[in-house]
Amino acid sequence: MSNGAETRIRRSRQKILTAAEVVFLTAGFLGASMDQVAEQASVSKQTVYAHFKSKQALFIEVVVSMTGGAAQTLQDELGAPLDHRPVQDFLLDAAIEQLDVVLTPRLMQLRRMVIGEVERFPELGKALFENGPQKAINRLALACAHYTDIGQLNTPDPAEAAGFFNWIVMGAPTSAAMLLGDRGIPDQKARHRHAAESVRIFLCAYGASAQVRR
Amino acid sequence: MSNGAETRIRRSRQKILTAAEVVFLTAGFLGASMDQVAEQASVSKQTVYAHFKSKQALFIEVVVSMTGGAAQTLQDELGAPLDHRPVQDFLLDAAIEQLDVVLTPRLMQLRRMVIGEVERFPELGKALFENGPQKAINRLALACAHYTDIGQLNTPDPAEAAGFFNWIVMGAPTSAAMLLGDRGIPDQKARHRHAAESVRIFLCAYGASAQVRR
Repeated sequence: MSNGAETRIRRSRQKILTAAEVVFLTAGFLGASMDQVAEQASVSKQTVYAHFKSKQALFIEVVVSMTGGAAQTLQDELGAPLDHRPVQDFLLDAAIEQLDVVLTPRLMQLRRMVIGEVERFPELGKALFENGPQKAINRLALACAHYTDIGQLNTPDPAEAAGFFNWIVMGAPTSAAMLLGDRGIPDQKARHRHAAESVRIFLCAYGASAQVRR
Repeated sequence: MSNGAETRIRRSRQKILTAAEVVFLTAGFLGASMDQVAEQASVSKQTVYAHFKSKQALFIEVVVSMTGGAAQTLQDELGAPLDHRPVQDFLLDAAIEQLDVVLTPRLMQLRRMVIGEVERFPELGKALFENGPQKAINRLALACAHYTDIGQLNTPDPAEAAGFFNWIVMGAPTSAAMLLGDRGIPDQKARHRHAAESVRIFLCAYGASAQVRR
């Protein structure tokens, strides 16, 4: 295939994903149709189906794109050589970045919609879990293992410690945003305070001199 | 009013609440009707309306009854004189009880349904938040203040510390249950291990000898 054709296909796919995000957030998963997506993207329904074989497959790609896009930002921010930053700086940056990236009205609305449909469409929730919290925890687990190796943390089970860090930071604000709507999303000042206290708690429990369970 | 009449009214109200729980969990909030509730409770629709002025008012009472019932159990379990239990025993009991009471398929299903409807019906989410997590945190805050008074904890802001304890314990399993359905609910062994590590983390950060921020 020529480069021009590949570029056209990629652009067409991105246009459909952007349109689908709008349609799903407006109409809900059940209410949305491939016809609406085609109309919103100004392409034919056949073109939509050429890229995505079903509404569910399209929705999962929207989830991957919205959360994966978020994860990519996080990766870019945190991907700098870990060695050169003391662990408390890394953790504070990670916490604030995670709060800023996840706590957007769009992502919170998508998450509410997916949760409301979990019993009917379990694949949607699985896709959001794996591309959202699980991906963030996996990345943190690598960092925990690294900082334990260089003597700045004490995490005998880096994945477990990473899970606790993630939910110390994200548990309260995401749960509030789920049940209280966008007014449950804390403002920037509250986020910074919450991030700082989360890091303090984590370092008390998993810092280099912490007494951990084996 | 005679005692007999009061008893009949209370029983009739309870019968409608029990029926409504079944109808809401089966049909969803939008799908449920007062007619279905009346039929399920074997009472007339007028009787349902005599107790609850609208479907939303009835749903909120179901939420209060399901979560308030849970909270009552917790209160009964934890209401024993706090003084006589060392703080780590109290916290471990509180964590295990909270996990056992909240992580039931019925409550998780109700919570998913409420989250899915938050944008259309914000009052439902507010009722669940206030009668669920917020009530648990308020109770923990009293315990944190008590144990700080007697020198077994160091929580300059008991409400903040209580919030962190609640989400250290409940953040991971409730978020998994929201997105992964009932298979996200951890088994008893996993809950006990999770509760024990949660208590260890909390005591590292807020134990009597912790270096807290002022």
